[in-house]
Amino acid sequence: MMYGFYKSGRMEQRVVFDIFYRMNPCDNGYVICAGLEQAVVYLRNLRFYPEEIAYLRSLGIFDEGFLKELEMFRFTGTVYAIPEGTVVFPQEPLLRLEGRIFELQLVESALLCFINHQSLIATKAARIVQATRGVLVEDAHPTSEFGLRRAQNGDAAVFGARAAYIGGCTSTSNVVAGYNFSIPVSGTQAHSWIQSFDSELEAFRAYVDAFPNRAVLLVDTYDVLRSGVPNAIRVGRELREKGFDLLGVRIDSGDLAYLSKAARKLLDEAGFQQTQIIASDDLDEDTIRDLMVQGAKIDGFGVGTALITAKGCPALGGVYKLAAEEKDGRFIPRIKVSENPLKVTNPGKKKVIRFYVGNKASADLIMLDEEAIPQGEPVTLFDPVHTYKRKTIYQYTVRELLIPVIVDGDIVYELPAVEEIRSFAQQELATLSSETLRPKNPHTYHVDLSLPLWELKRELMARMRTAGAN
Amino acid sequence: MMYGFYKSGRMEQRVVFDIFYRMNPCDNGYVICAGLEQAVVYLRNLRFYPEEIAYLRSLGIFDEGFLKELEMFRFTGTVYAIPEGTVVFPQEPLLRLEGRIFELQLVESALLCFINHQSLIATKAARIVQATRGVLVEDAHPTSEFGLRRAQNGDAAVFGARAAYIGGCTSTSNVVAGYNFSIPVSGTQAHSWIQSFDSELEAFRAYVDAFPNRAVLLVDTYDVLRSGVPNAIRVGRELREKGFDLLGVRIDSGDLAYLSKAARKLLDEAGFQQTQIIASDDLDEDTIRDLMVQGAKIDGFGVGTALITAKGCPALGGVYKLAAEEKDGRFIPRIKVSENPLKVTNPGKKKVIRFYVGNKASADLIMLDEEAIPQGEPVTLFDPVHTYKRKTIYQYTVRELLIPVIVDGDIVYELPAVEEIRSFAQQELATLSSETLRPKNPHTYHVDLSLPLWELKRELMARMRTAGAN
Repeated sequence: MMYGFYKSGRMEQRVVFDIFYRMNPCDNGYVICAGLEQAVVYLRNLRFYPEEIAYLRSLGIFDEGFLKELEMFRFTGTVYAIPEGTVVFPQEPLLRLEGRIFELQLVESALLCFINHQSLIATKAARIVQATRGVLVEDAHPTSEFGLRRAQNGDAAVFGARAAYIGGCTSTSNVVAGYNFSIPVSGTQAHSWIQSFDSELEAFRAYVDAFPNRAVLLVDTYDVLRSGVPNAIRVGRELREKGFDLLGVRIDSGDLAYLSKAARKLLDEAGFQQTQIIASDDLDEDTIRDLMVQGAKIDGFGVGTALITAKGCPALGGVYKLAAEEKDGRFIPRIKVSENPLKVTNPGKKKVIRFYVGNKASADLIMLDEEAIPQGEPVTLFDPVHTYKRKTIYQYTVRELLIPVIVDGDIVYELPAVEEIRSFAQQELATLSSETLRPKNPHTYHVDLSLPLWELKRELMARMRTAGAN
Repeated sequence: MMYGFYKSGRMEQRVVFDIFYRMNPCDNGYVICAGLEQAVVYLRNLRFYPEEIAYLRSLGIFDEGFLKELEMFRFTGTVYAIPEGTVVFPQEPLLRLEGRIFELQLVESALLCFINHQSLIATKAARIVQATRGVLVEDAHPTSEFGLRRAQNGDAAVFGARAAYIGGCTSTSNVVAGYNFSIPVSGTQAHSWIQSFDSELEAFRAYVDAFPNRAVLLVDTYDVLRSGVPNAIRVGRELREKGFDLLGVRIDSGDLAYLSKAARKLLDEAGFQQTQIIASDDLDEDTIRDLMVQGAKIDGFGVGTALITAKGCPALGGVYKLAAEEKDGRFIPRIKVSENPLKVTNPGKKKVIRFYVGNKASADLIMLDEEAIPQGEPVTLFDPVHTYKRKTIYQYTVRELLIPVIVDGDIVYELPAVEEIRSFAQQELATLSSETLRPKNPHTYHVDLSLPLWELKRELMARMRTAGAN
């Protein structure tokens, strides 16, 4: 397509593209957006190296003038984005890009890939953490991301661990992610550790020797209650004599509700009330919720495959759509119509504002960029599909969600630390009602269109219907 | 765990680990194994860089002697592997690693990640390609991998495109994958291309100007039958005057069965019998199979999200298990028992052989490495779980599946080109019966244990049951 724009003399055409998604993944009520840092780093470093140009030349499709353009290529566009960790909803532009169509068309797939993936995993992590008790991380049980071996290759593991932490996980077993993003790492031993010793007791002793103050012992290699926990208690007593406390035991198989309660009893009776019970074994949000409902005595979870692949909903369907095109110095709104009303795009250069009533987010409004933001007067919102559904907001504060990140190719935004993004995501979740946070059948949060945007959309839909045959 | 082995003075302990999986993904009858090249490159390049050592030091967990070991770390083990493109089955060691436990424990997660991911996507691709008509690529319709924007980050997109090609896709829209692996790239324009012109006709004309001999026109932006296909025909006629043929049209929405048949009729009537109809729009194997059953006139498919994420089965559950440990110069078999019989590992250093009767694979046998391979005498195999199930093979040839790839840290295997792996995978699929290839409820291919291995396993299971309490 870049070549097509080049050949048709349109490569300098300035345009606006939006990244947005149409449906929340996993039947969730929101998405925690993530991936912006990766997108910014990608745009900053984007260029074509000589060996890449040579490869493109070898395809025999492109002329030399075009390859020259690629050689000089740098991203010079402008990007507005909703900060990572923000809760977002269908149809909202998460990124709004403005620049030459030649550049903006190139970056579509990579940007979608990063934003779709990290937002998906952050959202899945929030669901899993929520299942461990409450909604906020403070209420929930520590949940460690354990998915490296089952991730869809290296980047999915590393950036997935980042996103899982943003979504509320407390740590990752992925040391590369710990190194790259300064996020907490944690881990225990594998069954191979236990197996590689002549007995479980010997294996436990060797492990606590190496990690006296952070030992979590895997107690299910032979028999949790008859062997694993009794041996852990024995080693815990030996540790105490050296002045340390046994941090925890991990159960990775069997009935986790039954075993955790029985193990808790054994530990408590032996005076190890503070020793935690960590559970793993192909856990997902539903299993965790069921375990908690059954009163399992689990202090922390390790979640692998289901988290790192967002099992059940392994893709967020973010799209990249043309919203406007410059003609004679102004942006002309563009629309994509479709048989499916959900797939008709919102035209024009847009912004998104959120109304807060008290501490809670009340509704979002997608509006044209040139519209004035309401400043306190009562606002009546209407559903863009079922327009008879109306809602008037009286006492509110308002926040604009899209902020400038790159202007004419220069980064103007200080990328926050991952730790900071995670705290922000927690604040964000606290602004949602419990109805929106419900994991199944959540209340649909209001995302409405401003009247001018809605009217523009109707007008363009009518006009575009006939454009095909022209 | 590396630190634990170091602290307990066991880091030099030589061991054998197997990578295998327990269940075919997506209810399939086989897996096409893939990812070995990535694993080999990883092992070859594996080392700890000064800034990584500094990070590990900063965690305050490890002593300096250990960090010194990491500084000197190189992979010096031996790896046997089943070549990429081979069809494999549950329980079979796909890789068998031998070396110091210090090294082999480190590489577990990364190797699993690469092998699990690429094998999964190759297998999913084979299922999708099979749905387009027959079993072999020769019989099937061209299927292009279109999933970059929905992949679980960059590596999943790039290595996923490689795996999809191995599994039978004909091309990818991912140019980075084309560049890295010398695999064919293909693509069409997006709706944004059409939208960015004042009319569909103008958009089509500009596109064929850039790509006169490879233009596939996206015909569903406005109305496939009233606008898209008539405009494509008009541009096709103009192309003909310049001596080119219109390669194809792409339909990306609506009822693909109905629209493809109607579009075919319009194209044929206008004399464009050779112009192909390409279909896309969130396709998966079931949708494709239904379309083919309904006689859709589709010549090629573009498959994105469902392929690149292996939607429905987004993880292959490969595991890494200790099989043997050296004591006094010989390998002592190790086993992991479990409440779940499926999870009890096969002990010892093992090999895998495949019996062929005629051109068809008849059964696989997992045996101890020291056992002699049958040379033509009748062989009776028995099911390792339901041992009354027996099968005697008379006229056969035999192939050993695991071959040496790395010996004492040196690569001894010439990594084949991806193109070659893909051809090999096609040959491999041709060795399977149509019952094993059936996408739902396939026949379970026989993978049996040799009598010595089965007896060893029984003996160790009995012995290990008591090891926990020692």
